[in-house]
Amino acid sequence: MKKNKPSIGWIGAGRMGYEMAGRLAKGGADVLVWNRTKEKAKPLEKYGAKVADQLAELAARDIVFCMVSTWKDVKEVVTKLLAGKARPKMLIECSSISLEGSAELRTLLEKHKIQYLAAPVSGNAKVIKAGKLSFVCSGPKAAFDFAKPYLNLIAANSSYVGEGELSRIVKICHNVFLGVVTQSLAEITVLAQKAGVPRHAFLAFINQSVMGSTFTRYKTPAFVNLDFKVTFTPHLLRKDMDLGLDAGRKFEVPMPLASATRDLIQAMIGQGWTEEDFATLLLQQAEASGIKLKSENKEVGDGLS
Amino acid sequence: MKKNKPSIGWIGAGRMGYEMAGRLAKGGADVLVWNRTKEKAKPLEKYGAKVADQLAELAARDIVFCMVSTWKDVKEVVTKLLAGKARPKMLIECSSISLEGSAELRTLLEKHKIQYLAAPVSGNAKVIKAGKLSFVCSGPKAAFDFAKPYLNLIAANSSYVGEGELSRIVKICHNVFLGVVTQSLAEITVLAQKAGVPRHAFLAFINQSVMGSTFTRYKTPAFVNLDFKVTFTPHLLRKDMDLGLDAGRKFEVPMPLASATRDLIQAMIGQGWTEEDFATLLLQQAEASGIKLKSENKEVGDGLS
Amino acid sequence: MKKNKPSIGWIGAGRMGYEMAGRLAKGGADVLVWNRTKEKAKPLEKYGAKVADQLAELAARDIVFCMVSTWKDVKEVVTKLLAGKARPKMLIECSSISLEGSAELRTLLEKHKIQYLAAPVSGNAKVIKAGKLSFVCSGPKAAFDFAKPYLNLIAANSSYVGEGELSRIVKICHNVFLGVVTQSLAEITVLAQKAGVPRHAFLAFINQSVMGSTFTRYKTPAFVNLDFKVTFTPHLLRKDMDLGLDAGRKFEVPMPLASATRDLIQAMIGQGWTEEDFATLLLQQAEASGIKLKSENKEVGDGLS
Amino acid sequence: MKKNKPSIGWIGAGRMGYEMAGRLAKGGADVLVWNRTKEKAKPLEKYGAKVADQLAELAARDIVFCMVSTWKDVKEVVTKLLAGKARPKMLIECSSISLEGSAELRTLLEKHKIQYLAAPVSGNAKVIKAGKLSFVCSGPKAAFDFAKPYLNLIAANSSYVGEGELSRIVKICHNVFLGVVTQSLAEITVLAQKAGVPRHAFLAFINQSVMGSTFTRYKTPAFVNLDFKVTFTPHLLRKDMDLGLDAGRKFEVPMPLASATRDLIQAMIGQGWTEEDFATLLLQQAEASGIKLKSENKEVGDGLS
Repeated sequence: MKKNKPSIGWIGAGRMGYEMAGRLAKGGADVLVWNRTKEKAKPLEKYGAKVADQLAELAARDIVFCMVSTWKDVKEVVTKLLAGKARPKMLIECSSISLEGSAELRTLLEKHKIQYLAAPVSGNAKVIKAGKLSFVCSGPKAAFDFAKPYLNLIAANSSYVGEGELSRIVKICHNVFLGVVTQSLAEITVLAQKAGVPRHAFLAFINQSVMGSTFTRYKTPAFVNLDFKVTFTPHLLRKDMDLGLDAGRKFEVPMPLASATRDLIQAMIGQGWTEEDFATLLLQQAEASGIKLKSENKEVGDGLS
Repeated sequence: MKKNKPSIGWIGAGRMGYEMAGRLAKGGADVLVWNRTKEKAKPLEKYGAKVADQLAELAARDIVFCMVSTWKDVKEVVTKLLAGKARPKMLIECSSISLEGSAELRTLLEKHKIQYLAAPVSGNAKVIKAGKLSFVCSGPKAAFDFAKPYLNLIAANSSYVGEGELSRIVKICHNVFLGVVTQSLAEITVLAQKAGVPRHAFLAFINQSVMGSTFTRYKTPAFVNLDFKVTFTPHLLRKDMDLGLDAGRKFEVPMPLASATRDLIQAMIGQGWTEEDFATLLLQQAEASGIKLKSENKEVGDGLS
Repeated sequence: MKKNKPSIGWIGAGRMGYEMAGRLAKGGADVLVWNRTKEKAKPLEKYGAKVADQLAELAARDIVFCMVSTWKDVKEVVTKLLAGKARPKMLIECSSISLEGSAELRTLLEKHKIQYLAAPVSGNAKVIKAGKLSFVCSGPKAAFDFAKPYLNLIAANSSYVGEGELSRIVKICHNVFLGVVTQSLAEITVLAQKAGVPRHAFLAFINQSVMGSTFTRYKTPAFVNLDFKVTFTPHLLRKDMDLGLDAGRKFEVPMPLASATRDLIQAMIGQGWTEEDFATLLLQQAEASGIKLKSENKEVGDGLS
Repeated sequence: MKKNKPSIGWIGAGRMGYEMAGRLAKGGADVLVWNRTKEKAKPLEKYGAKVADQLAELAARDIVFCMVSTWKDVKEVVTKLLAGKARPKMLIECSSISLEGSAELRTLLEKHKIQYLAAPVSGNAKVIKAGKLSFVCSGPKAAFDFAKPYLNLIAANSSYVGEGELSRIVKICHNVFLGVVTQSLAEITVLAQKAGVPRHAFLAFINQSVMGSTFTRYKTPAFVNLDFKVTFTPHLLRKDMDLGLDAGRKFEVPMPLASATRDLIQAMIGQGWTEEDFATLLLQQAEASGIKLKSENKEVGDGLS
């Protein structure tokens, strides 16, 4: 980082925000973090970050990142951020919010002459830690170019896909793909197992084949050892499938695999699998195939650690 | 390669066999290649391979690899290989043949006391060249352990999944997954495009996201520039989907996404897309969405070269 | 009809409304009809109906039926109906409107102390003529009981399904079923044809089998002779499938066959089949199966005339 | 029945065969019945039928009907029938056998100069009793014309669809349709119920709507009162769906709704619903929708008695 580097504000030190802000600070950026529960942000000080008492302190920063839970949270924190007179030059919004929320935010920020980059991500907390996160960004190209060095401190890659809220659609497409891939993986894993191939051996091959992805690798422990500690709930995945299908209706794109997967997620929810990870699609597939799965108790890597 | 290294025979110098034998020779193995059209194998001499006039010459080799097109070809070359008195210690069969063919071959080879490794692969000629091929193997574990150093000269990875013909089922599962992933990718790529995101920008993000795979990367030029030079025909993909669904019937595993994808491939064939690559699923998806695609004429990488 | 019979108003003499009002008049009811274009209603006089100049004239009638096109039309005519001081005792709304529209109408009519029966129908103009229409009704049970003799002059059957707008949901379910049945019929008709069975012979059997319905019978001329004069457009069917899927989301009911059919209708629209009857699903199915259909030029009955 | 009426043999007095032979006898035909367990056939004497001790006695009859369970049974009884010197003029085979079995039978009978009509049916024992059975026939047209008066004593309708084994394909298509219709009915019935409409009220409307069929009516008691006494098992329905999908593969007809339904039947079997009627698709649909159904304990008609 060269001299005269921009000052950065960071809103949200939850599971993902904490890791992202941490990478930024470790990378040498000048970061001031605010979190509703201040204690959760404190450990970031060891990486050189400062922790704010009041959200309003961040308004004087050059760039403010926002990584919270829902559109409601985004609205609340941005309102507080702009309550005083100071204004950041740019806001980078990374939460998973809807197209409509993102557009409303853009209108608001434009009034205040604040540049706005919509920048959702692909990955979870472990993926960030492993340095494999990626951003998908939309908004003014100049804003993206300015922000890129800071995005690159956080993530391995950042893509620019165009103006406005396009990155929100891309994130939805990404999650639709994730749903379909998980269900397909459940179908073939159960088939291979019933044919006699242990799940760990089957997935070891898939992961190193041309079809293997960071995702198939980090879901492998769940599929092999049936550890369904939640990373993303069935309800959240259903919500994203529905957003994808709604976009399909709007743009008149039939999406037969997305529709079929959506209905299978609904059936999973109907049968009571709601509190664990969405990867319990594997358990539903096994029951539909007449078997009850057991953990294989194998130490398998997740490709991240 | 240490002294007393085993001698290797290689049957088949087609698009894939040529690259595989080439890597083996370059890696220092003692390889004698036979191909129906001898001229096609000749250039392998520059890597240190020898080229045989008669298939029978390979019978005295320690290990014989076989990489041809169909079960009919396998049967023919193995019959000729065993026509004389000499016998290899091991045969490694890499072609995409059925479970039934593979089992018939095993019975035959057991009579001749030849160890047999069923070893289909994930990847195409470019993938081999890029050093990213992977083997999935089944048969006696000892045979796999013995063969592994030679497999590793050819491919980045080799997985052992169990006894008998299990690797054939795994290969079928892999190809079912490939069909589903391609159709899902077609759905979301067309959706993103109709929403305003160019295909190259969309796929650039997907490829570097947690969902990106060697496969999504090497299909990107086809999706972006509509180059559908055949790597795998719709008829061949339909055949593998049907083998997967047949296995699903046999083992009583419902496969809703595989079934839906199979029917979409059938519809593509019915509408006349038969001579190009199966990735024309993208074109069918576009027509169903009311648009005609144009090449984006973008230089995009395939992640291999 | 006994003495002191209630006076009836009828709004809407379109293709269906005309036939319904006609049956009511022929059955001996005292009917006063209003239609935007008065001329279209005039021929009803030969059955004993009277034709109104002003919509307001109907406000003094005991029962007013409403059979127009859209919720917007319903709103408009009801507003005009209630512009003066006179009030009917009951309104029976038969148009295909949404649950939300129907509920809004109920609130409005309750303010005016007018009983309200939501009464959509199953059938088209030819079905009415053939005396095979059926009503599905919801609202106060007493209102249904009072209306029943008049409903029975129009239709062969009337079902009461409960309070409020339940009949609207039932109508949507009916139309979802109609979409699925049509697609399934297209699949098996094309299969039978490719196997060698003429469509008219195939459908003759299906129609008289346990699976035959009034619907399969009246769609037979379209399937045999490819007469796709519109009775219901692909866009309207897609709208009803979407209403069904929306209800499925709301009530958490996965609907895999409805979803698959919806996507096939979308694909049909994407490929340009928008101006003819939705039964062109048959043509899409034929193209997906590699054949172009020709009319069989057979005189086949529709089970109605 | 006029003088010189042909003599008829009847093989098989199971649930369906008994009712069919009974109608033939009551209609005045000269019927000689054989059944493996003679006692089961005895009550047919009260309608004027005779009961044979030996199957061979039927060989001298003009027309022999065959209504047994499987192709294996058909083969066995026909072999015994032809063991002596006498030969019937015509054999009418009504069991649900495969295309291949039917073709094998045709070859055999042609050698013996016996005319052969392949004549499967639509309906169950109650449907026969109610006089609503229908035949679908293939073979020589002259054979059909000759047989028709006798078919009409048994069934309400008989359709001729062409040469050879075409009627077998039509029967398979009929059963595929039945599977799809049942699943769709399950989807909408559960949706209507969750919206607040009792199943009996919902089905009363569907049954009298244009979508109602003999089938929807006779399945109504099962859907309303959850009486799943088996009429057709899930395994048998799956077999017929598979025959339909096999025909779809052979004739290159994609069948997305049939495929989806097939997978749902497989899932139902996987979850243990195997011993009751296939209409338990309703129960599976309810569980996927998060509810457990209860009998409505309503007296509802089946449209047959």
